Amino acid sequence: MLADLPTPCLVLDRTILARNIRGMAKALERLGVPLRPHMKTAKSIEVARMALQGQPGGITVSTLAEAEYFFGHGITDILYAVGITPQKLDRVAALNASGARIIVLTDDPGMADAIAARPEPVRALIEVDSGEARGGVHPDSDLLMNLAARLGPRLAGVMTHAGHSYAARRVAEIAAIAEAERGAVAHAATRLRHAGHAVEIVSAGSSPTARHAENLAGVTEMRAGVYMFGDLFQAEIETHAIDSIAVTVLASVIGHRPGRVLVDAGGLALSKDRSTEATPHDYGYGLALDLDGQPGYGNATVVKAYQEHGVIAADPSRPIDLPVGGKLRIAPNHTCMTAAAHDRYFVVDGDRQVVAVWHRVNGW
Amino acid sequence: MLADLPTPCLVLDRTILARNIRGMAKALERLGVPLRPHMKTAKSIEVARMALQGQPGGITVSTLAEAEYFFGHGITDILYAVGITPQKLDRVAALNASGARIIVLTDDPGMADAIAARPEPVRALIEVDSGEARGGVHPDSDLLMNLAARLGPRLAGVMTHAGHSYAARRVAEIAAIAEAERGAVAHAATRLRHAGHAVEIVSAGSSPTARHAENLAGVTEMRAGVYMFGDLFQAEIETHAIDSIAVTVLASVIGHRPGRVLVDAGGLALSKDRSTEATPHDYGYGLALDLDGQPGYGNATVVKAYQEHGVIAADPSRPIDLPVGGKLRIAPNHTCMTAAAHDRYFVVDGDRQVVAVWHRVNGW
Repeated sequence: MLADLPTPCLVLDRTILARNIRGMAKALERLGVPLRPHMKTAKSIEVARMALQGQPGGITVSTLAEAEYFFGHGITDILYAVGITPQKLDRVAALNASGARIIVLTDDPGMADAIAARPEPVRALIEVDSGEARGGVHPDSDLLMNLAARLGPRLAGVMTHAGHSYAARRVAEIAAIAEAERGAVAHAATRLRHAGHAVEIVSAGSSPTARHAENLAGVTEMRAGVYMFGDLFQAEIETHAIDSIAVTVLASVIGHRPGRVLVDAGGLALSKDRSTEATPHDYGYGLALDLDGQPGYGNATVVKAYQEHGVIAADPSRPIDLPVGGKLRIAPNHTCMTAAAHDRYFVVDGDRQVVAVWHRVNGW
Repeated sequence: MLADLPTPCLVLDRTILARNIRGMAKALERLGVPLRPHMKTAKSIEVARMALQGQPGGITVSTLAEAEYFFGHGITDILYAVGITPQKLDRVAALNASGARIIVLTDDPGMADAIAARPEPVRALIEVDSGEARGGVHPDSDLLMNLAARLGPRLAGVMTHAGHSYAARRVAEIAAIAEAERGAVAHAATRLRHAGHAVEIVSAGSSPTARHAENLAGVTEMRAGVYMFGDLFQAEIETHAIDSIAVTVLASVIGHRPGRVLVDAGGLALSKDRSTEATPHDYGYGLALDLDGQPGYGNATVVKAYQEHGVIAADPSRPIDLPVGGKLRIAPNHTCMTAAAHDRYFVVDGDRQVVAVWHRVNGW
């Protein structure tokens, strides 16, 4: 039972998770594009198996630790969606030599040459910048063509990530960014094909753009990860329903002050992420929920996060009447960051009964 | 060699660590008070053994995972300095029944009764508030006497933590807070002794107040942890020299933009801590150093931290001339938060040679 777990710990509601996965699958079915789920948020094979239902079977990862773990659990088609380095290429090549089909990402001529020169089968996507200005080449650049020529038959396609969709605040804005994301990567693919290159993969996505895109012509797959769990930030940008956040931190009350409750979930258990600072509703370091995951404490939020102490400011109309040792749950601002401090999920199915424990692959 | 390590990872310079430990020991020797090192930052037995040289042998911990780990490595005198709950009291009692001497902390009458009622040997400190207003009772309160009466012979003493020393910006301010910290806890001890209670432990501290206190009369031990490693925030509040930061994150360049370098240390490897936002110099998510840990890149700082991507804005006068795969180091804002994402330290002695790998006990 949740009430018996040591705190702080991570609770995953499988019922909500399944609903979120169905929701994203339906959104993309409508547009005729499959999903390559991004496992950077969940980092769990059990979650990956749920997310892959009805999909082609490929996943996206953010670390080589994830790549090794998921390959060890039988998933071979893996996109490592962070710019590759020579040292990491060695690790990828070794995995591919033993049966994995890890696809790497680059926007660097030197790395394109290094990929082309490997004896092991390593294919690459060229990263295209669709407006985020983090990594990637412009779809109209000479560098795009140069990289493709260097990669030669190792070119698998193009990829972009409209991470600036996180700066949007409305569905219409996100839809416009999704169209720019699609346009950039589809245009890059067209240019490459006109020059005679085979472009198998045209990959786009982020949870907001995957959810709100209206047209994905020319895109062969979408990547998204946060949608599985959701968080307060995604709720604020209208990408996720606030009552569909699947992951919460279970915490115990460790002290009381007038109007405030001290809990044993602080900056390490919740993360120091403050992404809702810039959204209409600032949730501090998280929103306090009752043991059932329901908003029984109104607008009570974690207003301070020390290393192991969280301070919850109670909603005056909904006091938190728990003794020391009493338990509550905290919905996270940014579920990728919060989950990463924890090595496992305690899984429930909509109630307080723990039905499974699922491990996470953290680190690098 | 550092250049061969997989990135991102945590580098610990043992030479700097030893110097920091000597510096704190000297500061407290002058005041005649021993140190109960707080292991919440380092979470490593090797570091604990260094910090305990010349000290009585007791440590402070922030989680029961730390308590179990350090007890497993032969340290018995352990203060668990976070308010205890009934469930955690069970774990502590079990450890004490097998030979540990874990001291717990409370400011709650119900918990004082629960501690008094345990058949196993569990002693407690009463938490005193010396101005931080996080936890603890006022030193002049009736509740202080009430808690002592409930604990009876289980009372081991009093403890306070002047965490508000982190809001100070000058040595003189910190010295004043250190005096308030000392005054509060010493006064609480005096009141309890006058009422006939034995008060063995009078515990105070934070790295800033331990470093800058001018008088510790009535205090039997100081607790501090961050001083071992230091960080940019401690440097900003004049508690730690910026060239004495012992822990850095080793990162690889994964891409280039005009004036910017993309590295593989993002929000997970660096943490999302932004504590230098409120200090004279805002270091973003960390300060870029060269592979030798020297300020070879001027004021280059990590200006954006995505999950696995960090964006370094270069100092125009000191460009970062590294290819993709080139390595640099990043000094952290808040070393407790940054280190917690990593499961081990790669230890060096002032150069690039890795001389040891030390593990950390993360989680709860």
